[in-house]
Amino acid sequence: MARTQGSHSGTTRPRVRAAALRLFAQHGYAAVSMRKIAAEVGVQAGALYNYTPDKQSLLFDLMQSHMYELLGAWADVPGRCTPLEALEAFTRFHIRFHSRRPDDVFVSYMELRNLEPGNFGVIEALRRDYEEQLETIIRDGIASGDFVAAEPKVAAMAVIAMLNGVNTWFREAGRLSLEDVEALYWEMVRKAVSV
Amino acid sequence: MARTQGSHSGTTRPRVRAAALRLFAQHGYAAVSMRKIAAEVGVQAGALYNYTPDKQSLLFDLMQSHMYELLGAWADVPGRCTPLEALEAFTRFHIRFHSRRPDDVFVSYMELRNLEPGNFGVIEALRRDYEEQLETIIRDGIASGDFVAAEPKVAAMAVIAMLNGVNTWFREAGRLSLEDVEALYWEMVRKAVSV
Repeated sequence: MARTQGSHSGTTRPRVRAAALRLFAQHGYAAVSMRKIAAEVGVQAGALYNYTPDKQSLLFDLMQSHMYELLGAWADVPGRCTPLEALEAFTRFHIRFHSRRPDDVFVSYMELRNLEPGNFGVIEALRRDYEEQLETIIRDGIASGDFVAAEPKVAAMAVIAMLNGVNTWFREAGRLSLEDVEALYWEMVRKAVSV
Repeated sequence: MARTQGSHSGTTRPRVRAAALRLFAQHGYAAVSMRKIAAEVGVQAGALYNYTPDKQSLLFDLMQSHMYELLGAWADVPGRCTPLEALEAFTRFHIRFHSRRPDDVFVSYMELRNLEPGNFGVIEALRRDYEEQLETIIRDGIASGDFVAAEPKVAAMAVIAMLNGVNTWFREAGRLSLEDVEALYWEMVRKAVSV
């Protein structure tokens, strides 16, 4: 029996993370106790500490994983030979990636204020990495004469904010498909930085 | 002495609202108790109920007031004769108005999930009213041949999301002035919906 806990940890760990993400998104980090997460997973409160040292580590782990997955998935996106192709790929990728992870997106934005300073620094650096991917595309497009932006960094943040907005209104069952939405946003993004 | 409370209510009411807004923005609605708000204001917990029936009413009141002020202030903005002028006026107004109210903006977005259904309906309708102000400008610009947008409603939400992003990075003490930022965003908004 001594190994029961260990032998289940492979399936329990992702369930702890999924439960924490769901509860943080629904109620907010500050309102969710470790006891509540344990109840959602269906384990004793004490058992939760086999999977995470504390609630802060759980939040940080969720936000850091989200950023790693985002950066990793973007690195794998093909078809980025010209600045225009790269900008279209980024626009469509960002919308698709985030539309499948509304809770991650919401928690990652909303709970930044609840990260301890060291953890905040790590997440901020990862966010900057991602923003810089887009900023580089815009700078390349300016160099090639395809784009105009007086402040490429500001343009990158403006584009990302615009794309983040999709999650606040898009519904799978709605009139527009995700493909339609990608096309509409790509048109606006392209024009916003075009010559 | 019986009138003390009444004679102070004119100054206490706004202090209750300001304290609630600050605490909701800092810790999240679910994590803030009426007792904590009372302590922040410097009154007894029981005295708080002279100013608001409960915490939900306080949240709703803050979010509704924010939307009333936004719609009222926009109605007073001059220089909206042509669709292009109106779009520029909207862009600059939205950035200026929201940059002065970061806590209102944060709470209004983040705490939508904590509104009771009836209250949520009221706030959603006010938000739609505001979005429709911009949608109408875009439709007018399409009619006049100045703008192109296959889905004016989507374009309006994209523009508002882009402008909302300013609050996540703009700092008064930074290299760019608010006037610079307005000009940068106006350039991008104009091009995003231009022919």
